[in-house]
Order: sequence, then structure tokens, then C-alpha cells
Amino acid sequence: MILVSVLASIAAPPSETAVRSAAAAGETTSVLVSLLLLLVAAKVGEEIFRRLRLPGVVGEMAGGFIVGPFALGLFTPGETAAVFAEIGVIILLFTVGLEVRFDDLLAVGRPALATATIGMLLPVLAGFGIGLGLGAEPATAAFIGLALAATSIGITSRVLRDRGVLDADFTRVVLGAAVIDDILVLVLMGVVTGIVEGDGPAAAVVIVTAAGGLLVLGLAAARRARGLPRTVFTWPLFADTPLVPAFILMVGIALAAAAVGLAAIIGAFVFGLVVAETEARSELEHEMGVLGQIFVPFFFAVTGASVDLGALADPFVAFVAVTLAVVGIVTKVVGGLVGGRSLGRYGSLAVGVGMVPRGEVGVVAATLGLSAGLLTGDLFSAVLVAVVLTTVVAPLLLGWVIPRAQAEA
Amino acid sequence: MILVSVLASIAAPPSETAVRSAAAAGETTSVLVSLLLLLVAAKVGEEIFRRLRLPGVVGEMAGGFIVGPFALGLFTPGETAAVFAEIGVIILLFTVGLEVRFDDLLAVGRPALATATIGMLLPVLAGFGIGLGLGAEPATAAFIGLALAATSIGITSRVLRDRGVLDADFTRVVLGAAVIDDILVLVLMGVVTGIVEGDGPAAAVVIVTAAGGLLVLGLAAARRARGLPRTVFTWPLFADTPLVPAFILMVGIALAAAAVGLAAIIGAFVFGLVVAETEARSELEHEMGVLGQIFVPFFFAVTGASVDLGALADPFVAFVAVTLAVVGIVTKVVGGLVGGRSLGRYGSLAVGVGMVPRGEVGVVAATLGLSAGLLTGDLFSAVLVAVVLTTVVAPLLLGWVIPRAQAEA
Repeated sequence: MILVSVLASIAAPPSETAVRSAAAAGETTSVLVSLLLLLVAAKVGEEIFRRLRLPGVVGEMAGGFIVGPFALGLFTPGETAAVFAEIGVIILLFTVGLEVRFDDLLAVGRPALATATIGMLLPVLAGFGIGLGLGAEPATAAFIGLALAATSIGITSRVLRDRGVLDADFTRVVLGAAVIDDILVLVLMGVVTGIVEGDGPAAAVVIVTAAGGLLVLGLAAARRARGLPRTVFTWPLFADTPLVPAFILMVGIALAAAAVGLAAIIGAFVFGLVVAETEARSELEHEMGVLGQIFVPFFFAVTGASVDLGALADPFVAFVAVTLAVVGIVTKVVGGLVGGRSLGRYGSLAVGVGMVPRGEVGVVAATLGLSAGLLTGDLFSAVLVAVVLTTVVAPLLLGWVIPRAQAEA
Repeated sequence: MILVSVLASIAAPPSETAVRSAAAAGETTSVLVSLLLLLVAAKVGEEIFRRLRLPGVVGEMAGGFIVGPFALGLFTPGETAAVFAEIGVIILLFTVGLEVRFDDLLAVGRPALATATIGMLLPVLAGFGIGLGLGAEPATAAFIGLALAATSIGITSRVLRDRGVLDADFTRVVLGAAVIDDILVLVLMGVVTGIVEGDGPAAAVVIVTAAGGLLVLGLAAARRARGLPRTVFTWPLFADTPLVPAFILMVGIALAAAAVGLAAIIGAFVFGLVVAETEARSELEHEMGVLGQIFVPFFFAVTGASVDLGALADPFVAFVAVTLAVVGIVTKVVGGLVGGRSLGRYGSLAVGVGMVPRGEVGVVAATLGLSAGLLTGDLFSAVLVAVVLTTVVAPLLLGWVIPRAQAEA
């Protein structure tokens, strides 16, 4: 009958406190119920998909969709679910970083750079062209291109891990390209926003410099971290294991990356690369993996709960959305095929497909365009649905191409 | 620059969505910042206290207090922190249950029952007497007694674990007494509320029966769980380890216990007893321990952040609060000394001190009295401060008595 949250309100004048205590206790319970429901839905979804030999991560998204506001309406995304999801994707990218060697990543610098650059230019140009073709203003068309260009690596990372191919060459190219992609998006967003808001490029230059500096710092740290003993994490008395200090640093660095304009998950990934060079690596791989078992499903279930398939009922939205999604998929695949051509036919295809999911980065770009008054409601919906489609289709395509790329290599 | 929460809002009409997306993304970031701040404060507090050879858990509370609304004001308890705290104390009691053998608990049934009963009657009578002495109505006095009677086992559990005495006899008596205490409070609350609201005892009988049934069910399950293989948790494809199924069951059972009127943590503790009998025990001890490293500090830091030491500036409040706190401590200690007398001088003292923290259970009782219009603002504040004092003092007393009880045994 008693929930700790009631303690959270000994503050205010008594009568008010009583109301808040009761409300807070009830609120904590109901949030906990909805989190549990979402977790169960994700896991049931994963179970069904895996028994059907489909990617488990799509099952988690499907579970989230089913209980979410656009289907059964049992779960409404709220503050706490969003925080769980964010911590989940931070942990996911950190642990992926843990399993990658820094030198291996540098070794694929060229194909990664080529994949990111081509995979950025083609969707921007294609989106821009489609926008103009639909009769939109150039600035509007530019935002459509931008929303099509950004890659979100969370979903691909999960599929690559589930398939046990984190040490494959195409995985390294995808991860390297994702880091470069994030920087390029940052530059593009800065440029487009600067033009739209008439700020001039000065602000963009500052933020891009800061972001670049942070990345270079991280990569330099990875070099210096080589062979550091686990006591760099366990010197405090409260730290029996490296987990708590590493968790604090991981979230702190992710937030710092977000603060300078990079993706939080890129910060977490780079920190993972750094920690991978220390002797705490295997212990943290295990302990963060345990945390990830609880947090990571929330990222995918919340993503699924946010998909409004109903928007496809409008023919215009459906047509534009599917067109944009197809173009978005094809251009990224071409980027991978060209940029990663040294990896062979299926290897380069895996790289391209790995870059397909747009996820939250595409949503941010579209939202930016909407709030700047450049995207109309219909166009905005269409872009969002296209973003979601790339996110849902990618794991299925990856499930097909990865075994072939492995056989080839 | 991109937070997953923006995905949480593809729902509404576009213009509204854009606003919500931006707000949600910013909100997720700021909640994450405040959670990180609270965790860092808790861990710095623990570190300082441990270096001073004081109980680390008091340091976590102190850290929460320092950054909380009644000191620096950097952290304000909110929905997500409350959920983290609640999951933390659920995990804590589950893992304590994991480390206790069911038979050992039954073996101390008599001293536990005596400790709980005496430790319930004395504070109720004393609080009732003090209330009448202050000139309050009988119903008001009854609520003061009730707020003084309820024990919250979270803080004691943590200290017992930190000291490595979870297998001591006095630990078993405290844990057994805490379960019985929770049932007695339930009965008393039902009776008092029934009298106050004129419902008659019928509703109370129903809820007490349901709660008793749930407990008996749990204890029966513990008997039948003996030697079950870990595959009872790992049969789903998604479950590489027992963690996720056990986590889902643990939170579900805690919520079920809360739904029938018991404390959520009592549900988690009983489920821990059940799982302890299966072969998944040691694996879950480890994995839930890893989760606990992140979640449990939030329980103590949020508790600390809720303490309003400033209320003691009012002489009336300070006088009544200190009186109630002293009476609350003495009566529980007497309960332990009498109920646990078979454990020797320090052993029985450790039992009594272990029952001292009132925590959230006392707050709930006081809040109930306030919303029923039975406690005035001043009395309410005084009861709350007394509850907090018992909660903060107990770990310090335990730190003193535990080594002596060990030496004695």
C-alpha cells in the first residue's frame, strides 16, 4: 500500500502535501504498471517473432506498437518510459563500442568515410528533388532531404549483436560510417538552420568545432586508455565493481555529446571504444549487458509505440511516404555498395542496409522543419512515416543479407 | 542532439506534435541530468561516510538531502526518480529474500511474532497517549499512534547486507517480524480508517483476507519451488538468463501485493524467498545485484531529498517531533528486547533497532490522517519529522549494535 514516492513531498504546506503525496504514490504505481506492461509486450513480441524466425528486435517494436496509442491504447509514452528508452539506447551503443577495437575501426576509415559521404549526399539530393517535384519551396525540399539523410545506428547495432557479427568487417564499416554520418548531419543541420533562420554560418561553425573537438578528444583518449587497470573505475570505496563509476561516466558523456549537438548515443559509443582498451572491458561487457537486458527493450518498444500506421490511410501521405521510404532505402544501399565495395557484393550490401534506419534523427530533422514553418502537416506526416518505415524494414533486410555476407567473407 | 523521446509523439496533429516533440526531447534530457546528479550525490555521500567509517546508506541519504529541495535545490523529486527509487527498493527486498532460507525464517517464527506484536502495541499506545496529552481528539491520537507503529524494512535490510550479517539469527527475526508487522499495520489501518470513515469493518475484513491469502500463497509456493531447475525462468527464447522473466515477475508480484493493500516490498521479499528455493538462485543473486547497484541508491537518495530539516525551526514541531521520535525508537527497541530475548542482550537489541525505521509506511499513515482532517498542519509536520528521524538514526544505531551482537553470538 505504500510507495516511496510519497516521501517525495514532505516539502509543501501540509494540506497541499497530502494531496501531492497521495497523487504521487498513485502516479508511481500507475507508471510502474505501464512500464511493466510495455516490457511484457516487447518480450512477448520478441518471443513470437523469434519463434517465427524473424528478427527479435522487430518483435519488440511490434509489441510496443500493439499496446501503444495507435493500436490497443494500453500504453501511452511518458516521461519515465522515454528516460528508460534513452538509457537503453545509450547502454546499447556503449556495449557495442566495448566490443569494437579502436584500431579495427581506424583500419576501415576509408570505406566508412566513403559510405557516410555518399549515403548522405544521395538522400539529400533525392529528397530535395522530390520536394521540388511536389512543388515545395527550396528550403522545404532541403528539410525533406535532411530528414532522409540521417542514420540512427541503434537498431542496426542491435541486429548485428543479435546475429553475433560485431567483429565482422561490414560491422566496423557501418559503425565507423555512423560516427562520420552523425558529424555530417550536424554540419548539414547547422548550415540549413543557419540559412533558414538567417543566423549566418557562425553559430554552426562554433558548434561543429566543439563537436569535432569532443570526438577527437574521445579518440585520443582511446589510445591513452590502452591497458589501464580496472582500478581506474574501482578506486572509490562504493565501487565493488567498475559498474557504477562507468555508468555515471557513460551517461555523463552521452549528455555532454548531446549538449554540443552530437547524438547522445555517439558519445556513449565513443566512450565504449575508450573503455574497451582498459582492463575493465570484459567485466563491464557483462555488467552493462545485464543492465541492458532491462533497459534496451524499452528503446525498441517505445519506438514501436510511436508508429502511427493509421497515417497511411490518407492516399497522399501514403504515396509520398512510400516514395520517400523507397528512395531513402535505395540511396543508403547505393552508398554502402559504392563506399564498401572492397567488402564484396553482400558485404557492401550489408553496409548499405545497415545505414538504412533513420530513427530519431530523421524525426528531429522533420520536427525542426515543421517548427520552422517549412513542412506542412501532410508533408510532415509523410516524412515521419517514411522514417518509421526505414526503421522497421532495415532489421528484416539485415536478417536476409547478414548470413550471405558472412558466407561470402 | 537527438533523443529518442521525440519518437514518442508522432501521434497528435502535426503542429501540436512538433511542440510536444521538442518539449519531450528537452524533458528527457533534463530528467536524465537530474537523475545523474542525484546518483553522483548519493555516491559521493556514500564515499565520504564510508571513509569516515559511518554507514554508507546514511551517506546516500545525506547526498540526496544536500542536492534536494531543502538544501541546494539542484534536484526536485519527480515521477522518474520516484519510479527508480521504487524499483530500487523492490530489487533490494527481493535480493534480501533471495539470501534467506524459508525454513530459517519459520524457525524464528515465535520471536518474530512477539517482536512484531509488542513493537506494534507499544508505539500505538504511546502515540495515542501523547496525542491525548497534547489535547487531541481520540481519532487524531490514534493516527499518531499508527504512524509511529509501522516499520519499513528497506533501510534495515541495506545495513544488514552492507554488514554481511544476512545469515545472522537477529536478521531472520527482523525480517520475519517485518512481514508480520506489515500485516498488523494493514489490519490496524483498516480498523482505524473503517471507524473514521464509518465504513464498518466489512471492507477491512475483505482486504485483510486477500492480503493474508496472498502471503499464504507465497509461503506455500516457496515450499513447492524447492529444487526447481533454472529453466522455469529460461524457457522463453528471449531469456538467455533468468533475469528478464524474474524481473517481470518480481515487479508484477510487488504491484499485486500493493494492490491488495500490502507493501510492494513485502511482495518482492516473499517472491525472493520463493526464488531462493530454485536453482536460479545464485545466478539471480548476481544479476539482480548488478541491477541493484544502479537502482537501489535512488531509493535512499530520494528519501534523503525528501527530508525537511527546516521544519525543526518551529519549537512546537521540534518538541513534538523529537518526543515522538524518542518514543518511537524506545518502544520498538523494547519490542525487540522482549520479543527477541532468546537472542541475548545485543542480539535482541539489534532486533529492536532493526525495527526502528518507519520510512514511507509512517508517512502514508500520517498522510491518511491529514486527508481525513484528523491531523492539523503542525501535528502532521511533527509526525513526518519524527518518522524521518527514526529512519536516519536507525542505521547509525545498527552500525553500533551489529558488531556487538556478532561478538555475542
